[in-house]
Amino acid sequence: MEKSASNWGVAAVPDSWNFKPNERLLGLMSLSVRGVLARIKAEMVAAGGGGGRPVIPMGHGDPSAFPCFRTAPEAVDAVAGALQSGEYNSYSTCVGLEPARRSIAQYLSRDLPYELSLDDVYLTNGCAQAIEIICSVLARPGANILLPRPGYKFYEARAVFNGMEVRYYDLLPGKDWEVDTDGVQALADKNTVAIVIINPGNPCGNVYSYEHLAKVAETARKLGIFVIADEAYAHLTFGERKFVPMGVFGAVAPVITLGSLSKRWLVPGWRLGWIVTNDPSGVFQRTKVAASIRTYHYICSDPTTFVQGAVPNLLENSKEEFFQKTIKILKESADICWEKLNGINGVTCPSRPMGSMFVMVKLDLSCLQDIKDDMDFCCRLAKEESVVVLPGRVVGCKDWLRITFAIDPSSLEDGLDRLKSFCLRHSKPAQ
Amino acid sequence: MEKSASNWGVAAVPDSWNFKPNERLLGLMSLSVRGVLARIKAEMVAAGGGGGRPVIPMGHGDPSAFPCFRTAPEAVDAVAGALQSGEYNSYSTCVGLEPARRSIAQYLSRDLPYELSLDDVYLTNGCAQAIEIICSVLARPGANILLPRPGYKFYEARAVFNGMEVRYYDLLPGKDWEVDTDGVQALADKNTVAIVIINPGNPCGNVYSYEHLAKVAETARKLGIFVIADEAYAHLTFGERKFVPMGVFGAVAPVITLGSLSKRWLVPGWRLGWIVTNDPSGVFQRTKVAASIRTYHYICSDPTTFVQGAVPNLLENSKEEFFQKTIKILKESADICWEKLNGINGVTCPSRPMGSMFVMVKLDLSCLQDIKDDMDFCCRLAKEESVVVLPGRVVGCKDWLRITFAIDPSSLEDGLDRLKSFCLRHSKPAQ
Ligand SMILES: Cc1ncc(COP(=O)(O)O)c(C=O)c1O
Ligand SMILES: Cc1ncc(COP(=O)(O)O)c(C=O)c1O
Repeated sequence: MEKSASNWGVAAVPDSWNFKPNERLLGLMSLSVRGVLARIKAEMVAAGGGGGRPVIPMGHGDPSAFPCFRTAPEAVDAVAGALQSGEYNSYSTCVGLEPARRSIAQYLSRDLPYELSLDDVYLTNGCAQAIEIICSVLARPGANILLPRPGYKFYEARAVFNGMEVRYYDLLPGKDWEVDTDGVQALADKNTVAIVIINPGNPCGNVYSYEHLAKVAETARKLGIFVIADEAYAHLTFGERKFVPMGVFGAVAPVITLGSLSKRWLVPGWRLGWIVTNDPSGVFQRTKVAASIRTYHYICSDPTTFVQGAVPNLLENSKEEFFQKTIKILKESADICWEKLNGINGVTCPSRPMGSMFVMVKLDLSCLQDIKDDMDFCCRLAKEESVVVLPGRVVGCKDWLRITFAIDPSSLEDGLDRLKSFCLRHSKPAQ
Repeated sequence: MEKSASNWGVAAVPDSWNFKPNERLLGLMSLSVRGVLARIKAEMVAAGGGGGRPVIPMGHGDPSAFPCFRTAPEAVDAVAGALQSGEYNSYSTCVGLEPARRSIAQYLSRDLPYELSLDDVYLTNGCAQAIEIICSVLARPGANILLPRPGYKFYEARAVFNGMEVRYYDLLPGKDWEVDTDGVQALADKNTVAIVIINPGNPCGNVYSYEHLAKVAETARKLGIFVIADEAYAHLTFGERKFVPMGVFGAVAPVITLGSLSKRWLVPGWRLGWIVTNDPSGVFQRTKVAASIRTYHYICSDPTTFVQGAVPNLLENSKEEFFQKTIKILKESADICWEKLNGINGVTCPSRPMGSMFVMVKLDLSCLQDIKDDMDFCCRLAKEESVVVLPGRVVGCKDWLRITFAIDPSSLEDGLDRLKSFCLRHSKPAQ
């Protein structure tokens, strides 16, 4: 008998399944970087795709496929050793294995004026699950959360899915994408639970100064709201400003730090992240935020146990040279990006990237003909030049682009040259 | 300067953070196997713990720490190879890497009358995340879901967290824990979206016959509801009845199969599971369940990419001898368990376990003195004998116990002997 669905020997099911899908969930697709990039790539492929040239992926923040961004061998050895030991095949303990949590506490404490303990650390399946958990824990009817615009849409998706109201405060392009703290104060009310800041910034490539972070902390204190500090790009800075963790200001306002191995170790596929409560005054204990995070861990899935098992070894044996090599390439790429972008008619880049893997670029549609908007720009760029960049609308800024420079420098030059040709070809004739 | 929280040089924060925690979330703790076992263990430790004897863990379903339940070397090699190749450091594609999905489709199709395609398969972070995703996708205001009692409480926790109503149908202890299909029909109404069945069963150790599964499918068809078939323990059967996947009946009623590597490969820490739609009539397409599962993957975290990368190799190279060895030990343990339990006064075991790793045992409190209930029984057993078993209330049956026999046979004998001493010591004197 041929195995095929038409061959089951049972009548097809009737129309009796009248399930109504969750429209709120279905609507979230358009908020996702992955979803929009997948759509752009599908259109590119359907159109025959840019004349057969290799695709230059400047859309998403994952350089790990490029040989120059290969993770450190010590890191691979740490994970392989934990796997092969056979000691980490079991379920992990609820908020994560203690040695891993202790070593993350020590690793982060190096940059803080105090010592974190392992009880401050909760392991997660990447920073993405950290965001999911925090949104699940903070959501309650009527609550709202303040998110940066432009920002990382995963927050909105998770907050909305959990029924939380989302309010956007502006990052100021003229001031190196600083937080508009006046705007924050105007937005917040008694139902505001937290403000999210992303530093180093996705999508803006900003790095905040100590003074600016202090100001954000003071603002949160005044408003009585928590600070959620997304530090997925911690230490990926290549300008003069070094990375300052928000936890430094944990006594000014309670800070929840989110982080992961993904970016600094160039291993987003390993799925190891953390939530850390910086809570010298015990606010997270008193308000049961800590207990809620712990409880949520009972009803969600954990990061792979042997990756947890590898964390102490991985953090202790990572070499400074590995980090420096990454920074060197990122700096070179960011410089190329800044210089080339400044020579392209039709786009403007308000601020030189100082960290992370991204830069925001404003489209000047008045110089370009037949381009409707950012989405149209990106779809046509992909079709005509096999270059993928992200429409700004996905990060909250219509008619901007988010460009990833974290790809190998020669591909980046190629990609930016193609972007230039595209803009030239679509320029309005001089009048 | 000493690094300590009291030393920040900043005034302690005022009481201005008045966050109100999500009580629904905090309440879920008591539904969790992990949460209750952690509490029992904590009480045991606090009480000085069973006279220093080694703890016998018969509470949770994770035998992987015992040397006799070590996973296959081929499986470890597959994962180590994927990790060391450096090809899987990146984010995975949204619903999972295609080769992994294709090989799972092939693996499951061996036992089906038709071929699944890779589009039917969605990878998850273990079966736990599969449950999370399904509950998130099916939840909408007013919807209810039918769960087995006794059952696996993670379903209730996720359904309740997502705002779904939970209704329990009975498994019948006198009939090898079959589904009470009459009860199911009486429970369902127009807001019922699905029925969950767990086969082989946790916590009952049941294995359903082809005929019984057909009857469940017919019942679902009559009611117009989906079947969610939790097959986390697929192929772990050691009686006469072989495992029959529910997908066999996918043309009778649409079936969503949940599974993982965790149990059959003895690697719950590897966190690789799947959702599979058995949908020859396209009901999941038409009702957008498939699109909803796909969308949810855009807003959740993925299983570790290199574990995904290892799946084809792992599934193709797993040896029959490895599976048979596991079954042989489980059968031996189940037999020991059944025989020893039948010789203990104060507990009765309605039905010999045929699969999975568990058996349900009814407490006869009328024979036992000073024991209030199942929770009291388990706490005292732990304190006095260093034996951990799960109070039945956690799986929906107060004054029962769930006992795991999936530990090494000699520890199991020891544990059951201690259980016997405990019951003897607490027996009411003959009147
Ligand atoms: C700002 C920000 N936060 C969190 C994440 C998620 O990181 P992870 O790979 O650790 O899940 C990303 C990933 O791109 C990010 O850009
Ligand atoms: C019935 C059932 N479903 C699902 C799971 C979760 O399995 P996984 O380890 O694949 O997340 C378990 C784990 O014990 C289980 O017993």
